[in-house]
Amino acid sequence: MRLEDWGEDALIAAIARRFVARHPRLAKGIGDDACVIRELGGRALLATTDILIEDTHFRKSYTPPRLLGRKALSISLSDIAAMGGEPLFFLVSIALPPETDKRFVDGLYEGLAQAGRKGKCLLVGGNTARSRHGITVSTTVFGEAPAGEVVYRKGARAGDLIFVTGEPGSSALGLRALEERGKAAARGPYRESVARHLDPEPRLPAGRALAASGLATAMMDLSDGLVLDLKRLCIESGRAAVVNMSSLPLSKELQRFGRQAGRKRMFEFALTGGEDYELLFTSPESNLKRLSSLSRRLSLPFTPIGKIVPSKRAGRAVTVLGEDGSPVALEREGFEHF
Amino acid sequence: MRLEDWGEDALIAAIARRFVARHPRLAKGIGDDACVIRELGGRALLATTDILIEDTHFRKSYTPPRLLGRKALSISLSDIAAMGGEPLFFLVSIALPPETDKRFVDGLYEGLAQAGRKGKCLLVGGNTARSRHGITVSTTVFGEAPAGEVVYRKGARAGDLIFVTGEPGSSALGLRALEERGKAAARGPYRESVARHLDPEPRLPAGRALAASGLATAMMDLSDGLVLDLKRLCIESGRAAVVNMSSLPLSKELQRFGRQAGRKRMFEFALTGGEDYELLFTSPESNLKRLSSLSRRLSLPFTPIGKIVPSKRAGRAVTVLGEDGSPVALEREGFEHF
Repeated sequence: MRLEDWGEDALIAAIARRFVARHPRLAKGIGDDACVIRELGGRALLATTDILIEDTHFRKSYTPPRLLGRKALSISLSDIAAMGGEPLFFLVSIALPPETDKRFVDGLYEGLAQAGRKGKCLLVGGNTARSRHGITVSTTVFGEAPAGEVVYRKGARAGDLIFVTGEPGSSALGLRALEERGKAAARGPYRESVARHLDPEPRLPAGRALAASGLATAMMDLSDGLVLDLKRLCIESGRAAVVNMSSLPLSKELQRFGRQAGRKRMFEFALTGGEDYELLFTSPESNLKRLSSLSRRLSLPFTPIGKIVPSKRAGRAVTVLGEDGSPVALEREGFEHF
Repeated sequence: MRLEDWGEDALIAAIARRFVARHPRLAKGIGDDACVIRELGGRALLATTDILIEDTHFRKSYTPPRLLGRKALSISLSDIAAMGGEPLFFLVSIALPPETDKRFVDGLYEGLAQAGRKGKCLLVGGNTARSRHGITVSTTVFGEAPAGEVVYRKGARAGDLIFVTGEPGSSALGLRALEERGKAAARGPYRESVARHLDPEPRLPAGRALAASGLATAMMDLSDGLVLDLKRLCIESGRAAVVNMSSLPLSKELQRFGRQAGRKRMFEFALTGGEDYELLFTSPESNLKRLSSLSRRLSLPFTPIGKIVPSKRAGRAVTVLGEDGSPVALEREGFEHF
């Protein structure tokens, strides 16, 4: 059935049925002008928004609608994770061409529901609109944390080690495979990278644990590439950073790609590839032991990749040292959206 | 300067400079993964989201960027008004083609800033993205109200009078003039309707006063047309409604249009035209005197247009009585987005 035959109220009713939202803090979810959330003392409310645009962030040809829905929510959950928060509620604004098939919409909302269940995050409202050109999905997520535990980008201090979770560059490698081979890439030699690109995992348990334990001095998620995002963290913290290329955690697939395309290209992916949704955080060296035990408990690698240093006026915010220890010039820092 | 030469971080820095956000409840606004809002006891937090899509909701040919920015925020502020809340903070996700001129972006954010100042609502975060086709602006607004004062769609009772603020149908008449005559319509015979379409005014003082005084039993804003929106209010309330066409408040411009195009077309605009962002609310007849004094104080007409009646199973949620008092069949109820 085409969306234009199905109609808006039927679409919204189907969404509301799928996301029955009961929660002690929720006075009203879908179905009024705004959702109504009851407040609690001593907690800070977190809010973040993201937008996914067809042919900018995804292509229909290789993106199953269910994974599009999961990703649309996961990337905002990742922002909540990066503040050390727990997700609570989300809103979705969606724009669809009238010829969109109902099955596509079903798949999209099934994906949103799956990511919501996994992240313990309830749909409480949103908006549907017709578009002329392509699909747009905009998500807004609310989370909360004890006010004193929120981890900002601004807390990095000189001497802190810089850590990254997982294996950055995977998502960009997966995107490259999808752009080259279409959906067949999901069964090809870069299938794990493809999965990281299409279905990123927000690092909610790690973000919460790093915040609750007080181990992270600054934290953010990686969306636009390691060097560009680290530069943003450095600017907020008024510090600079040195990253050792030889310390970067490289996935098996990225190493295989490096054997074919050269080590320079391999490091480019790890340093500048976007959409990893891993956590980047800083912590004093004295926390190394506690961090490695937390990493084991979470089954998620925390890799130290460099160090925070005092800010040099007019110097680079991020210096990357090559395998021989000398500074490397990068062609670009990461993914600029324009 | 074109957006692609300007760059994302420069764009975000310009936005952050424009919207310096200091507020006792705001721990962190723009510049981190999520904004952080401190909570207060006894208040309910309201949140709503809207999306404006080029060539669906507006055309660049007749929409000044400043008014696009104002409208993008105003329509979400209208949802907060319709719950009886006061706005606090907003997030903006924006997608722009790379060839967009910097002046367009400046105008857009200037408009957001104007609407924010007027509604006492601070920008605290958001997202910028590149699009292939056209401009998308998605806004999320947070507001709050004393928990016991929030007015839902669900509170209408049989016997309540149905009121509307302002003059519904104006925005649709303005849109018609714009589609026919382009931006010249802003100086034509329907100029006030054009202004209502391009620059709607969220009814924040009225919404808040109706909630604080306890005068409204149910309330919502008019976005998709009077009959369709009233039907939604009736469904939430488990009631039905009778509307008298002869009671509808008709603007001078809509009456002039009626003299040319016929009374049937005139009433169609008032009953089914979208995007008015007026308030639709219900109240017992015993409140008439207090409502008329509130209306005078706000310089905003509240017009009783009909009555809530018990729900008839399998009957129409909304019956419209024509000028002769007999039921009228409408070709469509309002604006369905698909």
